[in-house]
Amino acid sequence: MDTIGMDHGGGGLKARGLVEGFLRYFPSPYLRPLDDGAVLPLGEGSIAFTTDTHVVAPLFFPGGDIGRLAVCGTVNDLAVMGARPLFLSCALVLEEGLEEKVLERVLSSISRTAEEAGVEVVTGDTKVVERGTGFGMFVNTAGVGTVLRELGLGKVSPRDRILVSGPVGEHGMAVLAVREGLEFEGELRSDCAPVNGLVEALLKACPSVKFLRDPTRGGLAGTLWEVARGTSLGVKVWEERVPVREPVRGLCELLGIDPFYSANEGKVVAVVAGEEAEVALSALRAHPLGEKAEVVGEVVEEHPGQVMLETKVGGRRLLELPVGDPLPRIC
Amino acid sequence: MDTIGMDHGGGGLKARGLVEGFLRYFPSPYLRPLDDGAVLPLGEGSIAFTTDTHVVAPLFFPGGDIGRLAVCGTVNDLAVMGARPLFLSCALVLEEGLEEKVLERVLSSISRTAEEAGVEVVTGDTKVVERGTGFGMFVNTAGVGTVLRELGLGKVSPRDRILVSGPVGEHGMAVLAVREGLEFEGELRSDCAPVNGLVEALLKACPSVKFLRDPTRGGLAGTLWEVARGTSLGVKVWEERVPVREPVRGLCELLGIDPFYSANEGKVVAVVAGEEAEVALSALRAHPLGEKAEVVGEVVEEHPGQVMLETKVGGRRLLELPVGDPLPRIC
Repeated sequence: MDTIGMDHGGGGLKARGLVEGFLRYFPSPYLRPLDDGAVLPLGEGSIAFTTDTHVVAPLFFPGGDIGRLAVCGTVNDLAVMGARPLFLSCALVLEEGLEEKVLERVLSSISRTAEEAGVEVVTGDTKVVERGTGFGMFVNTAGVGTVLRELGLGKVSPRDRILVSGPVGEHGMAVLAVREGLEFEGELRSDCAPVNGLVEALLKACPSVKFLRDPTRGGLAGTLWEVARGTSLGVKVWEERVPVREPVRGLCELLGIDPFYSANEGKVVAVVAGEEAEVALSALRAHPLGEKAEVVGEVVEEHPGQVMLETKVGGRRLLELPVGDPLPRIC
Repeated sequence: MDTIGMDHGGGGLKARGLVEGFLRYFPSPYLRPLDDGAVLPLGEGSIAFTTDTHVVAPLFFPGGDIGRLAVCGTVNDLAVMGARPLFLSCALVLEEGLEEKVLERVLSSISRTAEEAGVEVVTGDTKVVERGTGFGMFVNTAGVGTVLRELGLGKVSPRDRILVSGPVGEHGMAVLAVREGLEFEGELRSDCAPVNGLVEALLKACPSVKFLRDPTRGGLAGTLWEVARGTSLGVKVWEERVPVREPVRGLCELLGIDPFYSANEGKVVAVVAGEEAEVALSALRAHPLGEKAEVVGEVVEEHPGQVMLETKVGGRRLLELPVGDPLPRIC
């Protein structure tokens, strides 16, 4: 008998298969793109609408906590849809026996992060389930925003450039380090941050932005694969240009994990017209969350549907499609 | 040390205290009314936005399942805000080891119920957590709709009439019966249904509708208390006019539970101007979900902030404020 496995919750192939299976139940054309949210006609304009439940373990980690993550997750999904996030819902599932001070820390964090992102929490729900499950709390947020610009993989073409707004893999490695009690955890911090300000700066500076994504579960590799599969074009990546901080690289090497597959929670991958790559790079670098941005790749006609890494020594190798996030309960 | 208890998740006083405590973290004026959702300015008009996580145990019960409940919960919250539900998100938390056929049954039910309610599921999220918790799955839905009419307790005044769209207490008793393996469960079915069509029929027929609520956790009693507290007026209820089906009355008597406190998932409580009570009653009864509707009470100047029952034998007694739902994990 088929049952749900942990890898159905990762950002990879297994999860994608499960979610694609859902489509037969839900005929809405707005769901078809299987984006992180939907753009919906409403009244005169369009709204963006998205949701995420956060089940991260532990609830607190260097650089963030489940509350900050829940706000950033939904704000960032709206931002990369080309929308301005406005309103959030917040639905809590609490485990009986949870200390109220833990709940208060998480609520404070939700509150601060919402203020930082310029969004309002306007509605909520609270459920309590029996003790003994050990999860403490789950936090769902849904978000509504107004669409600033319509983006999509359909706009992507050969010679477009691919940018990343900063060093990759930090959220995944920070959660792993604290979960496993690893020594050098102090140097590893989640990048968890609301990127809507960064995205608006980029959209303003750069009329040719075609596609944006926050590379969460499945990491940078998952997003690059999404571009390749969704466009039936090739993606070429200059491996040495992808920024990776030393502590992340160190832990990844120790554990045999590729930092390209490790989750980010405060980064943006952008696809822009080739001739605007430098403008886009400058716009990203002018924002505090994009100081370490880089142009890391290019959309090409070769190897359609696949992601090719050009390595430091001039070699080439296919980047493998992530099958699942290397870590469960990462967000 | 203070910890979260099961009664923090009920529809009563303890839950209300917890939620009111949340307000200090969230300054949005749209959250202030602590309604089941928020009415938000967006573009030319207003949208309604709400969320609910469903943690019901068991996942399947006579008359419904967690999927049907998750659609109805959010559709009904939007409807009683005076809105037309349009779009839903659906976020699943799955327990590792859940049988895929169970997931498929729930997804089919979500799909059918969404079609029945005339809403589209447009975005979603799936997380998987480790086996051993025993919950199987939790389902969060958030919903967006357009506001048809602005309703609110501020419009309620003395001599308004209170209507209920049908027999009360069915969802709570149906879930309890199946959970406890009680013999006569076959006669007890949840009333779980999308009431948006019923509400639109009422709004169309009756310009004076002032306030609507779906009496879920905390039951009819919780909603009547909400009216009394929120208006600082009194609520008078003619006990014998409140419809209660025999199997519900029987199980309630057996267990010492008042059916007025048992949850409903397909009912509406409406407050309308006294002179329009009969028009409202006719509109409700003309709809298949409102055939058993009754005028059950009146808003009065006496006993402000309290709910008074007039009993069959001419006596009067205060209806107590529910402290928590008599049942955990009811929705």
